[in-house]
Amino acid sequence: MIHREVLTIHTDRGRGTYDLTDRLRRAVVDGAVTEGLCSIFVHHTSASLLVNENADPQVRRDLDAFFARLVPDGDPIYRHTAEGPDDMSAHVRSALTLTSLNVPVTGGRLDLGTWQGVFLWEHRAHPHRRKVTVTVLGD
Amino acid sequence: MIHREVLTIHTDRGRGTYDLTDRLRRAVVDGAVTEGLCSIFVHHTSASLLVNENADPQVRRDLDAFFARLVPDGDPIYRHTAEGPDDMSAHVRSALTLTSLNVPVTGGRLDLGTWQGVFLWEHRAHPHRRKVTVTVLGD
Amino acid sequence: MIHREVLTIHTDRGRGTYDLTDRLRRAVVDGAVTEGLCSIFVHHTSASLLVNENADPQVRRDLDAFFARLVPDGDPIYRHTAEGPDDMSAHVRSALTLTSLNVPVTGGRLDLGTWQGVFLWEHRAHPHRRKVTVTVLGD
Repeated sequence: MIHREVLTIHTDRGRGTYDLTDRLRRAVVDGAVTEGLCSIFVHHTSASLLVNENADPQVRRDLDAFFARLVPDGDPIYRHTAEGPDDMSAHVRSALTLTSLNVPVTGGRLDLGTWQGVFLWEHRAHPHRRKVTVTVLGD
Repeated sequence: MIHREVLTIHTDRGRGTYDLTDRLRRAVVDGAVTEGLCSIFVHHTSASLLVNENADPQVRRDLDAFFARLVPDGDPIYRHTAEGPDDMSAHVRSALTLTSLNVPVTGGRLDLGTWQGVFLWEHRAHPHRRKVTVTVLGD
Repeated sequence: MIHREVLTIHTDRGRGTYDLTDRLRRAVVDGAVTEGLCSIFVHHTSASLLVNENADPQVRRDLDAFFARLVPDGDPIYRHTAEGPDDMSAHVRSALTLTSLNVPVTGGRLDLGTWQGVFLWEHRAHPHRRKVTVTVLGD
């Protein structure tokens, strides 16, 4: 059994994390799969997926701070600079994180850990319209 | 066909890698799937998955050394510090590595490369009890 | 329905990226799956997968430059040095990137974003023969 949903995410705050967890939970319920997998895919090379703590928002603030230092915008090492100082850094951040993710579906629900949330991570400075495909498959 | 197993890993040495390969191989045999996928998921945000060399243990020692330098504990950049100096660094290490992984199942066995092992990577300094779900699906 | 293909990639330029996108597209067509997933797996610990921009080759040149600085060969931190200065750095690069990847199959085709390509990333300095398994599953 396969259920497919396409999510559109408007990253209206620009760079940062956008919680997808509730939308993924609903997709699993809509899919009516009892046991299987929920596979999530980002159709972009300057945004990616993050699984991280869903409680203290400082965790995601600290992740942003760490990545801003590790992968700075406008790094003189880059030659692909025509689309702005945040473009190549966005590609590097995407390469260091996840484009796809599989979460188990157990007893008809998205089987995340207690403290896990799934986030779209926008790596460009300005808002974008992002596409995520959710595939629920199983019995 | 779907076979599900939940593994419990006691990370009794604290931070470091714990070999899951044999338990994954057994889960695939138990699942009686001939061709398909073995999907592995960690239910935590301060532990993750590592696929790396199964021969020389120095490789994993060097990986620990590299990550200790790249993502140091107690980094002054962090604000989420209430749970100790190793908590936020554990979240960053998780974001930089894998929460889920798919390995092919071929001819009824887990189809890893000759030198590949699959490890749980504990990122907290102290021992924890970790949950990993293994989903084997296919024909 | 499950379709399986094993790709062999000769990384004859040594370290760098090798475009797999066309071969993956053909595997999906050969698999005759309409809706489902294409799961890609690298059977090595010193080569990995990269999803990144398929247009300007400078993007991949810049990714190589970034990783050469972040994970230098011959780092004095390493003890696993018997196989050369590029061996342990290759393991670290693999740990920081992807060993497996799932791409949706939609309407019988590999459903990548407009600017996405899928690349094998060779992390060793010299050419190798690499094995990638492609599993297409769905209805």
